[in-house]
Amino acid sequence: MLAESIFTTPLMEALFSDATELRFMLAFESALATAQAAVGVIPTSSATTIADVCQQTDWDTEQIREQTLLSGNPAIPFVNLLKERVGRKSLKAVQYVHWGVTSQDVIDTALMCQLKQGLEQLRGDLNRLTNQLTALAHTHQYTPMMGRTLLQQALPMTFGGKVMGWLDGLLRSTERLERIMKECIIVQLGGPVGNGATLGEHGSAIRERVADTLELGTTTHAWHTQRDRLADIAAMLGILNGSLGKLANDVILLMQTEVGEVREGAAEGKGGSSSMPHKRNPVTSTFMVAIAHRTPALVASLLGAMIQSHERAAGAWHSEWPVIREVVKLTAANLHYANDLIGSLEVDTVRMQQNLNATN
Amino acid sequence: MLAESIFTTPLMEALFSDATELRFMLAFESALATAQAAVGVIPTSSATTIADVCQQTDWDTEQIREQTLLSGNPAIPFVNLLKERVGRKSLKAVQYVHWGVTSQDVIDTALMCQLKQGLEQLRGDLNRLTNQLTALAHTHQYTPMMGRTLLQQALPMTFGGKVMGWLDGLLRSTERLERIMKECIIVQLGGPVGNGATLGEHGSAIRERVADTLELGTTTHAWHTQRDRLADIAAMLGILNGSLGKLANDVILLMQTEVGEVREGAAEGKGGSSSMPHKRNPVTSTFMVAIAHRTPALVASLLGAMIQSHERAAGAWHSEWPVIREVVKLTAANLHYANDLIGSLEVDTVRMQQNLNATN
Amino acid sequence: MLAESIFTTPLMEALFSDATELRFMLAFESALATAQAAVGVIPTSSATTIADVCQQTDWDTEQIREQTLLSGNPAIPFVNLLKERVGRKSLKAVQYVHWGVTSQDVIDTALMCQLKQGLEQLRGDLNRLTNQLTALAHTHQYTPMMGRTLLQQALPMTFGGKVMGWLDGLLRSTERLERIMKECIIVQLGGPVGNGATLGEHGSAIRERVADTLELGTTTHAWHTQRDRLADIAAMLGILNGSLGKLANDVILLMQTEVGEVREGAAEGKGGSSSMPHKRNPVTSTFMVAIAHRTPALVASLLGAMIQSHERAAGAWHSEWPVIREVVKLTAANLHYANDLIGSLEVDTVRMQQNLNATN
Amino acid sequence: MLAESIFTTPLMEALFSDATELRFMLAFESALATAQAAVGVIPTSSATTIADVCQQTDWDTEQIREQTLLSGNPAIPFVNLLKERVGRKSLKAVQYVHWGVTSQDVIDTALMCQLKQGLEQLRGDLNRLTNQLTALAHTHQYTPMMGRTLLQQALPMTFGGKVMGWLDGLLRSTERLERIMKECIIVQLGGPVGNGATLGEHGSAIRERVADTLELGTTTHAWHTQRDRLADIAAMLGILNGSLGKLANDVILLMQTEVGEVREGAAEGKGGSSSMPHKRNPVTSTFMVAIAHRTPALVASLLGAMIQSHERAAGAWHSEWPVIREVVKLTAANLHYANDLIGSLEVDTVRMQQNLNATN
Repeated sequence: MLAESIFTTPLMEALFSDATELRFMLAFESALATAQAAVGVIPTSSATTIADVCQQTDWDTEQIREQTLLSGNPAIPFVNLLKERVGRKSLKAVQYVHWGVTSQDVIDTALMCQLKQGLEQLRGDLNRLTNQLTALAHTHQYTPMMGRTLLQQALPMTFGGKVMGWLDGLLRSTERLERIMKECIIVQLGGPVGNGATLGEHGSAIRERVADTLELGTTTHAWHTQRDRLADIAAMLGILNGSLGKLANDVILLMQTEVGEVREGAAEGKGGSSSMPHKRNPVTSTFMVAIAHRTPALVASLLGAMIQSHERAAGAWHSEWPVIREVVKLTAANLHYANDLIGSLEVDTVRMQQNLNATN
Repeated sequence: MLAESIFTTPLMEALFSDATELRFMLAFESALATAQAAVGVIPTSSATTIADVCQQTDWDTEQIREQTLLSGNPAIPFVNLLKERVGRKSLKAVQYVHWGVTSQDVIDTALMCQLKQGLEQLRGDLNRLTNQLTALAHTHQYTPMMGRTLLQQALPMTFGGKVMGWLDGLLRSTERLERIMKECIIVQLGGPVGNGATLGEHGSAIRERVADTLELGTTTHAWHTQRDRLADIAAMLGILNGSLGKLANDVILLMQTEVGEVREGAAEGKGGSSSMPHKRNPVTSTFMVAIAHRTPALVASLLGAMIQSHERAAGAWHSEWPVIREVVKLTAANLHYANDLIGSLEVDTVRMQQNLNATN
Repeated sequence: MLAESIFTTPLMEALFSDATELRFMLAFESALATAQAAVGVIPTSSATTIADVCQQTDWDTEQIREQTLLSGNPAIPFVNLLKERVGRKSLKAVQYVHWGVTSQDVIDTALMCQLKQGLEQLRGDLNRLTNQLTALAHTHQYTPMMGRTLLQQALPMTFGGKVMGWLDGLLRSTERLERIMKECIIVQLGGPVGNGATLGEHGSAIRERVADTLELGTTTHAWHTQRDRLADIAAMLGILNGSLGKLANDVILLMQTEVGEVREGAAEGKGGSSSMPHKRNPVTSTFMVAIAHRTPALVASLLGAMIQSHERAAGAWHSEWPVIREVVKLTAANLHYANDLIGSLEVDTVRMQQNLNATN
Repeated sequence: MLAESIFTTPLMEALFSDATELRFMLAFESALATAQAAVGVIPTSSATTIADVCQQTDWDTEQIREQTLLSGNPAIPFVNLLKERVGRKSLKAVQYVHWGVTSQDVIDTALMCQLKQGLEQLRGDLNRLTNQLTALAHTHQYTPMMGRTLLQQALPMTFGGKVMGWLDGLLRSTERLERIMKECIIVQLGGPVGNGATLGEHGSAIRERVADTLELGTTTHAWHTQRDRLADIAAMLGILNGSLGKLANDVILLMQTEVGEVREGAAEGKGGSSSMPHKRNPVTSTFMVAIAHRTPALVASLLGAMIQSHERAAGAWHSEWPVIREVVKLTAANLHYANDLIGSLEVDTVRMQQNLNATN
């Protein structure tokens, strides 16, 4: 889709690329073998071989994609490829590849590694945004403008006060973001039915070491079919997008020809019309509203996917994969636009005063 | 609807009744007048009169309902009724009724009072449930059963371990519930455009006193069009319902004729069929799944309603009213069923062992 | 909830009341017994007794409500009550009550009777609305106004043309409504597993007679777990609400203080503010937007409920009950508001011209 | 995402590629110029030049993607590129490129061209599926199996009857698909504010000619902000996916180890487990359920996007772009899986009989 770039950012495209996903899957298998060697359940030499192969970068992701349609998930062809390469170095080490774990362990953990980096990026962008809003609120602390309820002019207020309102909700989202980064970004390691039985007596120790290596949180239970953390992440990003949508919608309304109190910053080629060259359109805030319109349904999708059967769901789990990624990408794009918008927002204080005078 | 009682509880019906809603609106106006008298912006005698009238219990809620269709919200006819009664006692006091505040202040605050009680109820029920699950997990710590992935038998595990999985997600929801009760249950007080201007220099002091009286949290900003807290509450309850839906779905699957490992507790008249008297149906867990199917869409509705225009939204605000209440009611019903279900669950350990043996 | 009346109409409350639901359940059992007697599978005398009892009006719906929580649906206590009363007249007739059918047959059919009346009401209201819009478009065929894209003034158009746009989508919804009334309003009659086996060789004949008596469409298959027709009804109403939401949103935007091109009709007590008596708010269109915000999620709920297990779903079916009713009620309210809005809309052609002049 | 191929098909990826989208945009501009020359509003020589350039295939889609972020939609950079190339051949012809139309005309029309081809593909796949199901129902017309309600064994039925149930809903979706292809696949041509003013007196004739050339339906009104047809398409596909999800869910349930009545066809490397090589998993039906879980939210997204402001929406329109495409892709994948599943389904009639005997 030619308009695809509206709904993502280059950084997020890289983060959610096949290559990065594979890199995190390899990092998991490497960390796993290393941890298992450390606690003595697999030979150190095998772990070293596995970890070495996991450093390789020239994998055939296309083959994984294709075989996913037969195997039901990308972990199976991935592990086969990995075993093949390990086998070229040591036949003995092959049996210790992916030892005692299950597809979901590597898939969920790799996703968490992606989410961790994604959320860190979002946090940075959100902090930049709240800093910008704080400065803008300060600048316009005493700039009078009309307050509007039900889109009717109501009573005077300040533009700084309005900006403080936008900021207020976003600061709470900053806290929410910190919370989910702390509570929800965790390793998955439980083996086929999640009870760690196949990992042996050192299961907990292995889990902790893997978590440590990958810089993820740990947990006493596998969460193969307890998906509340993913839903929590999505919901918190949904809320953040809602706050950004409110901000953008206000800007669009203030930018109306008949109101004219703010204006998106000009840029070469920005906001024109294919038929009406004189127009200046609210391009950036339009994108933000478009994104904010999309996120609630995606959050619902992930909440609905929580009803997962027994020890692995037949469908609900799979449905999460594109949706959680989409939510993160949309949020990244939204924050990018918000920073752009606020960074170059033109505030027409004269027009604000005129609109105030007109009705008072 | 004859089946209406499935989706609520008597306690929640009482909490969200017209009478209770009105009682909280009166409590708000009483607290407001009292606070304003305390800081000296309205006469103490007027405040006393207002507070006295707010103790009255015989209000015509039907009239408020009807006039809501003209006024756009129930606060306007409510304030008119209140002024009328205050006026009978003191003409002077009338002008100090609802002084300096706006419809949204009383409506949002009354809603928060309802939510506070509702969430407290949910917390009690959730604690009861996690206690029951803890005991059940303990009882079946060593009860072997088959683990199932993609609905295929996979590897042995214990029933206690399965219960621990259910418990695990619910304990996180307990923490989430504590968090939203602390962060999201707050007073609304900002006046027409939310900047507190009409409340005068003592605005903050008044807000704190009102919050204190109503036992709500306070905040430095009005949140007339910053609705992230409501969305947060809904999302957290959506997650809780997802976890309950997962539990109930597992029970339904385990209760299949061909599996037969658990059974809902028997009760006179429970779980029969209008055409097949010999059947025993999973009634309670069916209700739970029905509720869990409904909540994601309702959360999406509230997330979508976050895009609120300027200082009061024309529609998005109003759309929240039935939806947030519905989410709380559904959660209450779901927790009620869950407690029932777990409290009387029949576990067939013999069948569990047979199913294990059959495939190993 | 004091604001409840915003989201329904008195007619819809009556249609979806316990009493009406019960009346349709009785009509089903009466039609069933009569049809079964006509084809000779139950004695005529028993059918007459059953039909007679089904004429009674003094049923204890509260008892049905309560026992629904044990039985899992209202049909079981309902059939018990019916049998009890039939038994008082003829012990022999009791065995022919609800003969060969299942709970879902009576519940789905009674719902369809309610939907039939509901949709007929909606059709009348929609026709009234499109007639009003046609007249309004005609009146303002040549009234110049500014067209606006991305909320920026773009090029001149006429107000009549704008109204024709609103009308255009609604006329397609009229056709959709006709279609679903023809295709989707059908009897349910299949017995416990939907194959009609318990109805005997005359199953089809019985189904047709029952459909005929209740003025419902018929079908060759039971649709106990094929719920596409319900989803179709909901989706079509969702689309209608979307079109109404667009209309209302345009009115709210045109009614902005700074635009002022239309105004909701005045009425005693309408559109005021609790804090700013001089304001005139877009009350009716605000309600319309609130409703339009709520319907998409409800449609999603019904689409999600289509994944129904085997011959009767454990949860998905039950989740439909309140949701499909809510969608119909919301649509009725929305159409009611739309008729009100258009019937009394004040069009300020002078202001339209001024806004045009200002930028050209 | 490595698992991306689960949610699409190669054909759909090609159809929704940048190259195909651009090809349809060029086809629109070519048809437009040709039509305008035919009715005499632009010179034939210019039209010929434009049409010639529109045959070129070596466009820089990357440049369009990038500039979309500035212009707000891909039409503006696209038209600029087109004008540049036309200008190289005839300076005079440049002014007649995209003459009298607006971005939304070309974007919506190109989308409709894509949807037309997409729906034709879906229709073929759906017909193939219903043919397969008809044959399967015929084969198992007399194969006895247990009917199950609330996942409890209820009464005997036939497997052919069960298949007829799946078929029943899908045949209605075939009719729905035919309907939307006839009613909803139409040209967009209205100029900046949709009233056709910039197209001059021959607007209708031009619109009909363009529609004719592109083999799209026509309409008397532009539908720039009347999006009911798109919502209709999405809803109908949502319903189809619901029916497919029900079918797949039944297969997963029948395929349970403890039930074992059907089995997905075997294929080299299909349905294995990374940790339990002996398992045979319901891979294809799992994908189908995953897709069916995702579509309701996407339909809600498009229904919610119907509230579009005035003559062009600032956000709601843009939000449709990825979502409607996603719905079509998901449906294509779902139908592909369904054909695979039914084409190779293994039915264990002996096990069906055993399960029947066990409880009767």
